[in-house]
Amino acid sequence: RPGVGPPIHAGVYEDDVVLAFLDIGPLVEGHLLVIPKRHYATVMETPDAALGAVAERLPRLARALLAATSAKACHVLANNGEEAQQSIRHLHYHLLPRRHGDHFAIPWNTGKLEPAGAAKLAAGIRKNLASQ
Amino acid sequence: RPGVGPPIHAGVYEDDVVLAFLDIGPLVEGHLLVIPKRHYATVMETPDAALGAVAERLPRLARALLAATSAKACHVLANNGEEAQQSIRHLHYHLLPRRHGDHFAIPWNTGKLEPAGAAKLAAGIRKNLASQ
Repeated sequence: RPGVGPPIHAGVYEDDVVLAFLDIGPLVEGHLLVIPKRHYATVMETPDAALGAVAERLPRLARALLAATSAKACHVLANNGEEAQQSIRHLHYHLLPRRHGDHFAIPWNTGKLEPAGAAKLAAGIRKNLASQ
Repeated sequence: RPGVGPPIHAGVYEDDVVLAFLDIGPLVEGHLLVIPKRHYATVMETPDAALGAVAERLPRLARALLAATSAKACHVLANNGEEAQQSIRHLHYHLLPRRHGDHFAIPWNTGKLEPAGAAKLAAGIRKNLASQ
């Protein structure tokens, strides 16, 4: 998506850590992007404290966004990696206001966690955590 | 969704701030939930520092999850409010590993940001930020 970035009319917030601006390709009305000024490609590659600092800006931005769009609910979404629909390789949070009757929804067709497989997977994650 | 919570076989991580466990209704293989131990309903209602502390746990958990599921990409998603598909009124991050050819995707049908409307909306958000 060439030319992405904060068009001057869409800038919402800036401080030493983050920029926030309206997405030029909105999924819903009020689609806001919040990005760190420093470059990190994904959540996986972001230092813990740096991700924490970005997240500390989200409650206030979400409240201001919802008040301005008369919405009560929103998704906070970060797509990390190409297979997870990340188009720009710079960490960004999507803030997506939602309203009854809007035309967006995340498909939520759940399976059922199978105990034996889950136990094995959980053990694998715990092992990886211990070795980091 | 009654009975949600960390089944003993699905627990992955615990410290003073968060619990992480496999979702009993997975959208994808390795669907992990990360929740604060203290109760906050949504991102909007979470104190800045508390959300930051939860977020600081995400890079390491995401890396361990992806290594265990042989995935390279993931969504990090928080649904906030009923209209945003939040089913349990306790803040939770979904970590959703993604792979080429899986059967999950977030619909990404974008519109086009209209400059005049965007300028007005951005001004409204900035005004709300200033008054918080």
